Amino acid sequence: MTAQVIKSKAAVAWGPGQPLSMETVDVMPPQAGEVRIRMVATGVCHTDAFTLSGDDPEGIFPCILGHEGGGIVESIGEGVTSVAVGDHVIPLYTPECGECKYCRSGKTNLCQKIRETQGKGLMPDGTTRFSKDGQPIYHYMGTSTFSEYTVLPEISLAKVNPQAPLEEVCLLGCGVTTGMGAVINTAKVQPGDTVAVFGLGGIGLSAIIGATMAKAGRIIAIDINESKFELARKLGATDCVNPMNFDKPIQDVIVEMTDGGVDYSFECIGNVNVMRSALECCHKGWGESVVIGVAGAGQEISTRPFQLVTGRVWRGSAFGGVRGRSELPEYVERYMKGEFKLDDFITHTMKLEDVNHAFDLMHEGKSIRTVIHFD
Amino acid sequence: MTAQVIKSKAAVAWGPGQPLSMETVDVMPPQAGEVRIRMVATGVCHTDAFTLSGDDPEGIFPCILGHEGGGIVESIGEGVTSVAVGDHVIPLYTPECGECKYCRSGKTNLCQKIRETQGKGLMPDGTTRFSKDGQPIYHYMGTSTFSEYTVLPEISLAKVNPQAPLEEVCLLGCGVTTGMGAVINTAKVQPGDTVAVFGLGGIGLSAIIGATMAKAGRIIAIDINESKFELARKLGATDCVNPMNFDKPIQDVIVEMTDGGVDYSFECIGNVNVMRSALECCHKGWGESVVIGVAGAGQEISTRPFQLVTGRVWRGSAFGGVRGRSELPEYVERYMKGEFKLDDFITHTMKLEDVNHAFDLMHEGKSIRTVIHFD
Repeated sequence: MTAQVIKSKAAVAWGPGQPLSMETVDVMPPQAGEVRIRMVATGVCHTDAFTLSGDDPEGIFPCILGHEGGGIVESIGEGVTSVAVGDHVIPLYTPECGECKYCRSGKTNLCQKIRETQGKGLMPDGTTRFSKDGQPIYHYMGTSTFSEYTVLPEISLAKVNPQAPLEEVCLLGCGVTTGMGAVINTAKVQPGDTVAVFGLGGIGLSAIIGATMAKAGRIIAIDINESKFELARKLGATDCVNPMNFDKPIQDVIVEMTDGGVDYSFECIGNVNVMRSALECCHKGWGESVVIGVAGAGQEISTRPFQLVTGRVWRGSAFGGVRGRSELPEYVERYMKGEFKLDDFITHTMKLEDVNHAFDLMHEGKSIRTVIHFD
Repeated sequence: MTAQVIKSKAAVAWGPGQPLSMETVDVMPPQAGEVRIRMVATGVCHTDAFTLSGDDPEGIFPCILGHEGGGIVESIGEGVTSVAVGDHVIPLYTPECGECKYCRSGKTNLCQKIRETQGKGLMPDGTTRFSKDGQPIYHYMGTSTFSEYTVLPEISLAKVNPQAPLEEVCLLGCGVTTGMGAVINTAKVQPGDTVAVFGLGGIGLSAIIGATMAKAGRIIAIDINESKFELARKLGATDCVNPMNFDKPIQDVIVEMTDGGVDYSFECIGNVNVMRSALECCHKGWGESVVIGVAGAGQEISTRPFQLVTGRVWRGSAFGGVRGRSELPEYVERYMKGEFKLDDFITHTMKLEDVNHAFDLMHEGKSIRTVIHFD
């Protein structure tokens, strides 16, 4: 049986700054090395909003946004062997080919195999699988999860435990893994370590979960919005600090609180000034700061080099340093074993038709994560 | 036999910006936990010149400069057990007490046990051992090697192989260890790695030696003074690059030369702009840049955080990350086994009386290292 073009409900971004528009689009069958999946659920993330706003210099329109999904394989293209029809999968905006210089290095999760075409909103062969009345619609982050059906390269799919609720583990497709992985994979926090987490959105809260899983001894949560502190404490924060309550730099406050600074800090906002604070609150001699947040175009971080010469380390993390195909399934297993919960993150659920409302809630700071259910 | 005050020839820095003045000073006996040594040789380092210039905000005068020495124990104070009269030692401006939070961490060489008094030009009990006609003269970096006799805390001495020529291994007291250690201890360069070294002074050349010892596959030496290239090649550099020969940023040149960037880079100048280039020439996904050079007061480094989020790491190194008492003797042994040479560094030797000439040669760029011989 050869797969056919399929009609799919999708939220299309026709142009920057416009609300998404519900459309019925054509989704082509998967080509060689590709997989078509039926989405079950997808989170709505700040990165989607960033691209939609027009501020993302790499944004290409019209496109179908969304990159934090969970779905089921509907059909496979020629040569696909690692997943079969009916498999439960999480789309990966950072693929894992296993063959490129990056994958082979063993030092990074930043597979570059399809980076060029993915960055242009195209499948690896340079074309799109979406169209509306013959007009091509671009892919987004290689995932385009705001569509009932979407096509991805085989290397961009993590096959996960079919028992896992896709309406929850879809969050492992971006935010939760980004925060938890930064703590567990990138920083490799050890039992008893002192940790500071700057910014208590979805990423920061996930970093707190990661620190709890790593058995950090002290977890300091920092935000200017104190309404976030209750959940932060519930997830494991031992101290909650509002920088506005002090008349000195927050890094000085934290250095004093911790008798010299933290072992690890995580910037989960994307604010370059906070990135500096996060570095400078690290302990002399060994403290490491991990930049997770994405700053605006052209913004720069700075510090005195003495901060580094005296032993602090400045690094970054993308998708939590997690290799999606080989390591994400294990995160799903840890979730299934009850090592962490996801329902605290899901403040709203709704249908795809209401996706613009999900953006509103996010912009108003009223949601941590909204999850779209497709059925 | 109780040690007495001893008369010592010393080059005294009476004030900033003045030439050093040859004096006969009084050197008190070592107090509890202290050791008096007879200097055999000392290198003359840029840091001495920096403090003498008056630009060092922590400079205290009058003082006896010098921190790259080799000597023989003349007498020991009460309770000293780790060295005995006649032992050959290298003074350590970074001590190793083995007891403080830093030493116990196992993560850093930055022992803080006596930092406060050392920074004030004093022995741990808050007094000095040097005087001239009753006027106290301050210590410098806890070492003050520009004196025939000097007193140090026991924890600031590395006991080394007495067969090693102190006239050469004195350089392991600062510059050579700083460069080699940054490569071997801090970065942990592995066989086959690609390395970039920015700045071909004593530190940079030592970093090249370290990269050679680590069996780096490619060692790119960068300097705007091409007269340094011959020695860099002799020590192991595979490529020598002058940034002035290109009309684009040197980081772009190196990324192109290396098909994506280097595994490790080392900034050995103290120039914040070069520090940025050194970071940005690192390979996406895993490249690490180590700041070794000391920048001027108040200067800052900067970059786009995307450089870190995409996998580069920015760190620093002081005294090559080497724990002086436990690890420096092994560097001396490696020297004795012929793993590296030091005579290439020693472009001039002279008596202490000529130390001002050593500064002149350094300022004129005519020397790599001048070594003062005391006999």
